[in-house]
Amino acid sequence: MHHPENDEQYKGLTVNKGVEQMPVVNPYATFRRKKHLLAPEDYVAGIRNGDISILGQAVTLVESNLPQDQAVAQKVIEACLPYAGQSIRLGITGVPGAGKSTFIEALGTELANAGKHLAVLAIDPSSERSKGSILGDKTRMQELSAAKNAFIRPSPSAGSLGGVARKTRETIVLCEAAGYDTIFVETVGVGQSETAAHSMVDFFLLLQVTGTGDELQGIKRGIMEMADGIAINKCDGTNRDKARVAKAQYKNALMLFPPSESGWVPDVLTCSAIEKQGIWEVWHMVEDYIDFTRKTGYFDLQRTRQAKYWMYETINQQLLDNFYHNPRIAELLPQAEQRVLDNQLSSFIAAHQLLEEYKRG
Amino acid sequence: MHHPENDEQYKGLTVNKGVEQMPVVNPYATFRRKKHLLAPEDYVAGIRNGDISILGQAVTLVESNLPQDQAVAQKVIEACLPYAGQSIRLGITGVPGAGKSTFIEALGTELANAGKHLAVLAIDPSSERSKGSILGDKTRMQELSAAKNAFIRPSPSAGSLGGVARKTRETIVLCEAAGYDTIFVETVGVGQSETAAHSMVDFFLLLQVTGTGDELQGIKRGIMEMADGIAINKCDGTNRDKARVAKAQYKNALMLFPPSESGWVPDVLTCSAIEKQGIWEVWHMVEDYIDFTRKTGYFDLQRTRQAKYWMYETINQQLLDNFYHNPRIAELLPQAEQRVLDNQLSSFIAAHQLLEEYKRG
Repeated sequence: MHHPENDEQYKGLTVNKGVEQMPVVNPYATFRRKKHLLAPEDYVAGIRNGDISILGQAVTLVESNLPQDQAVAQKVIEACLPYAGQSIRLGITGVPGAGKSTFIEALGTELANAGKHLAVLAIDPSSERSKGSILGDKTRMQELSAAKNAFIRPSPSAGSLGGVARKTRETIVLCEAAGYDTIFVETVGVGQSETAAHSMVDFFLLLQVTGTGDELQGIKRGIMEMADGIAINKCDGTNRDKARVAKAQYKNALMLFPPSESGWVPDVLTCSAIEKQGIWEVWHMVEDYIDFTRKTGYFDLQRTRQAKYWMYETINQQLLDNFYHNPRIAELLPQAEQRVLDNQLSSFIAAHQLLEEYKRG
Repeated sequence: MHHPENDEQYKGLTVNKGVEQMPVVNPYATFRRKKHLLAPEDYVAGIRNGDISILGQAVTLVESNLPQDQAVAQKVIEACLPYAGQSIRLGITGVPGAGKSTFIEALGTELANAGKHLAVLAIDPSSERSKGSILGDKTRMQELSAAKNAFIRPSPSAGSLGGVARKTRETIVLCEAAGYDTIFVETVGVGQSETAAHSMVDFFLLLQVTGTGDELQGIKRGIMEMADGIAINKCDGTNRDKARVAKAQYKNALMLFPPSESGWVPDVLTCSAIEKQGIWEVWHMVEDYIDFTRKTGYFDLQRTRQAKYWMYETINQQLLDNFYHNPRIAELLPQAEQRVLDNQLSSFIAAHQLLEEYKRG
């Protein structure tokens, strides 16, 4: 049985051929193209020396779909692994309008000024850098961008969620090996990207805004129960009272949720990113969580599970990609699906017929 | 490339070899073994005539992992498809102790007495019939079992969730073709079985009990946001006030959730299954939902999505089973996993090595 996909296996897991192009606004990509590829050991040495330029080039390799880039990237990642894992990884989600960028700018700048080494990454499968999506436009984080200890990297460009998330996950390894002790992973608060972010961070923060109506529109159901903490942003000016009421409401709501496996009780805080109020309190909540879960052993348990998760996730994604990108299957699938939708064929019989065809091919 | 699993493809999708045995307390199975298999058209004729005995035998075929049984079962299902789809499908979940059996007995008996034709099915991958798990012991539903219009069927016996859920999903088709206009699908409220149930029903009811502490233990996080309605059971005796307080709390909590895609606002009711109070109100909520979603078109949209979901789910499950049951992979996987856990190997490199090995095999 011949899988055409497998010939291109080292392209990486994304299969969005023709979708990804050379990033438009990524300075590293342009930079790299002008130079020869370094040897893997040179990337590793540069990363270990905290050379931000080399780190950026290595991340570009991780993000590349070219087989030769991936081959080097995987060697670099493997060599960085022994130095990885020492950071605190914070996931931050919230709908557009919740003030994520301002919050990250505020908290990130405080942490950088306090001596932390901060890397800010993102998962946004819908992003196209040229459209200025989350983190794409660094002008929105001027202060943080200027901080010496901060490394800001936009989401890998548009592609399948699996591919985008894998790249972010691997970039964490490089950043940790480069000495970053605090990693933010931002997601856009819709679709499946939170599950992906949740599976690579230690603490998952939901940034919320006040009100119970439109503000919730677009946030994925189930996210509230995924959160280790909620911060109600924009608690400022005339919004202050509303934010405090919302805080009480969320606290009550969380009490109705089943207890989390970690034993941690998610807290609800208010803050104003724009006025830089309540920002440290959010960070202290994260630190409390880390302390608590380190003591109970849940911290390591979760990290271990995440490593396993990513191995299986990668395998599963590739197996499915091989099937769905098989030309014969791609040709037959729409008809089979239509017959199922028209109630002419059982879901299960349609599935078996396609699997038989795949086996035969 | 040879997939040993594929040779046994018609065993159905469960791959829990050696786990499933002949059900111990299923009367139909024993009955069928004493007879010759009917021809597929005879099963279909019997089902269409509302012959409960033939229906039961056909369900046993659906549940069987024997290739010859599956071959007949798939023909029967295909022939029944044009007559399926006309029922209201209600999923019921809740932790053990929430009173699911009593509730189903109370609501089911009312509906059967009112002239409905009711089939009660279950998804419980952990069940072993001999252990008297949910629905396994019909003595817990004496009144309903005695009703003429009711067909009660325990969960397919223990196995992989995918296999158990598929069998329940196919059994719905047979029951609908036999004229059952109301289908209950019960799940146990833990693990992944709710997602499976949710993907085959029109309305998903969470049965809850009062209190905010131990009663929630064991319920899966995220279920509350999956529910189209919540019924707080055991609102009787000294529990009445607590139940009413809980109702208000849940109502407030639900208001904080993002709006559901259907536009339906989940309601919270109280009831006492044991005193048969508030049972009809729960059913009226289900009917309101059906009316509402039929008008908006969401009802059909969801049914269509579910049919698609099951086609893809079946394909994906089989592709993964083929891989993980490959003897070479089964041999290599534990070592690879251990190296990932020990941080000696990246999740992604481990995955690629295993996929290469699979391709080579």
